[in-house]
Amino acid sequence: MNKTTFLYEGKAKKLYDTADPNMVIVVYKDDATAFNAQKKGTIIDKGIYNNKITEIIYKKLASEGIPTHFVQRLNDREQVCKKVQIIPLEIIIRNFIAGSLAKTLKIEEGKEIDTPILELCYKKDELGDPMINGTHVIALKLATAEDLKTIYDLAHKINTILQKFFIDRDIILVDLKMEFGKLPNGEIILADEISPDTCRLWDKTTKHKLDKDRFRRDLGDIESAYQEVYKRLQ
Amino acid sequence: MNKTTFLYEGKAKKLYDTADPNMVIVVYKDDATAFNAQKKGTIIDKGIYNNKITEIIYKKLASEGIPTHFVQRLNDREQVCKKVQIIPLEIIIRNFIAGSLAKTLKIEEGKEIDTPILELCYKKDELGDPMINGTHVIALKLATAEDLKTIYDLAHKINTILQKFFIDRDIILVDLKMEFGKLPNGEIILADEISPDTCRLWDKTTKHKLDKDRFRRDLGDIESAYQEVYKRLQ
Repeated sequence: MNKTTFLYEGKAKKLYDTADPNMVIVVYKDDATAFNAQKKGTIIDKGIYNNKITEIIYKKLASEGIPTHFVQRLNDREQVCKKVQIIPLEIIIRNFIAGSLAKTLKIEEGKEIDTPILELCYKKDELGDPMINGTHVIALKLATAEDLKTIYDLAHKINTILQKFFIDRDIILVDLKMEFGKLPNGEIILADEISPDTCRLWDKTTKHKLDKDRFRRDLGDIESAYQEVYKRLQ
Repeated sequence: MNKTTFLYEGKAKKLYDTADPNMVIVVYKDDATAFNAQKKGTIIDKGIYNNKITEIIYKKLASEGIPTHFVQRLNDREQVCKKVQIIPLEIIIRNFIAGSLAKTLKIEEGKEIDTPILELCYKKDELGDPMINGTHVIALKLATAEDLKTIYDLAHKINTILQKFFIDRDIILVDLKMEFGKLPNGEIILADEISPDTCRLWDKTTKHKLDKDRFRRDLGDIESAYQEVYKRLQ
């Protein structure tokens, strides 16, 4: 399968049409951004690792009955995915308090939570992806109440599957961001990627960060963190 | 009934114990604050109007079956209320887009919404009352899932009753903020006040603002807005 028309360039990926109207090719870049693209940089071979990590995770999720857009990996940086209409929401699930929430609540990073927190952000660059809730989603007609129920249900299931998947590899899944899309038949499926760009992953024992926080916070050893996650997932 | 021990001073009210351990006396002040108390001022006789407006509204709500903390008005500035444990949440219902949400979404003020938006803020001055959602409430143990269900249900009922109550008086209820408390027996009831300090109220025809936005935005005619609301509610 080959790329035909260029469709869209995001912060970390490019999207191309293919000869099959139901399939796209996703190209993973090494570009890294943080804080709504105020910080920009490159993480060498990040695109290769995230392409392969997403393949492993989406195959695992599919094997557990989660519908995803992933079809197959083509090469180091490219994968074929089902073409979807992206629902303009970032769904974040938090198992531990970290990042922006730790700052907002003035709680130390790493506090475990009994019941996962689910946050929604409105994906719209010119607004800075503000946090909203389900009633905003419905009022703004970003999704229906029924769609939201499906998304919440899938998000919690994905979190449960991946918490176990990562801890079996001595990694704590602190939080993760998901995006969902709609197929032409209306089915809602997991889209985008799940990788150290979109999760917080800490070593179980040392709590060493194995994710994009190393880039956000200038912690060094960025490339090796992505490699380490890939190594443990294989 | 007389005030005994001083309990608490908020931005717009003071609270005193009484000889009855189940009752407090609320004293309405003229102090006005905005933007998390960064802006401060006085609105002459605001305390008198808000005390009387809250009396009218809480009696109306009680007549429609909504449990509230209001017992009786004592004089111009004082009312007796049931003593409750305040749930540290601000519940905001929006029927039109205005204020902070208009800014966040870059939508013009006054856009009507098909289904009301319900927002939660964590009442904690040192955090600046951040917006959160139900999953934060449960994870932080600010209220149980069952409590939240009761609160959502009451908030929507109150909004429906007051939308009609105000529009019959040629006032649009743009949005309102509520606080709830728990009685010793566990029952959740409406607490705090509902007044031009805590609602956005626009004249139905002219869209003239009859609420604290006149103070927030230095629009002038502040005192007369509070008087006008009181006049129309009588």
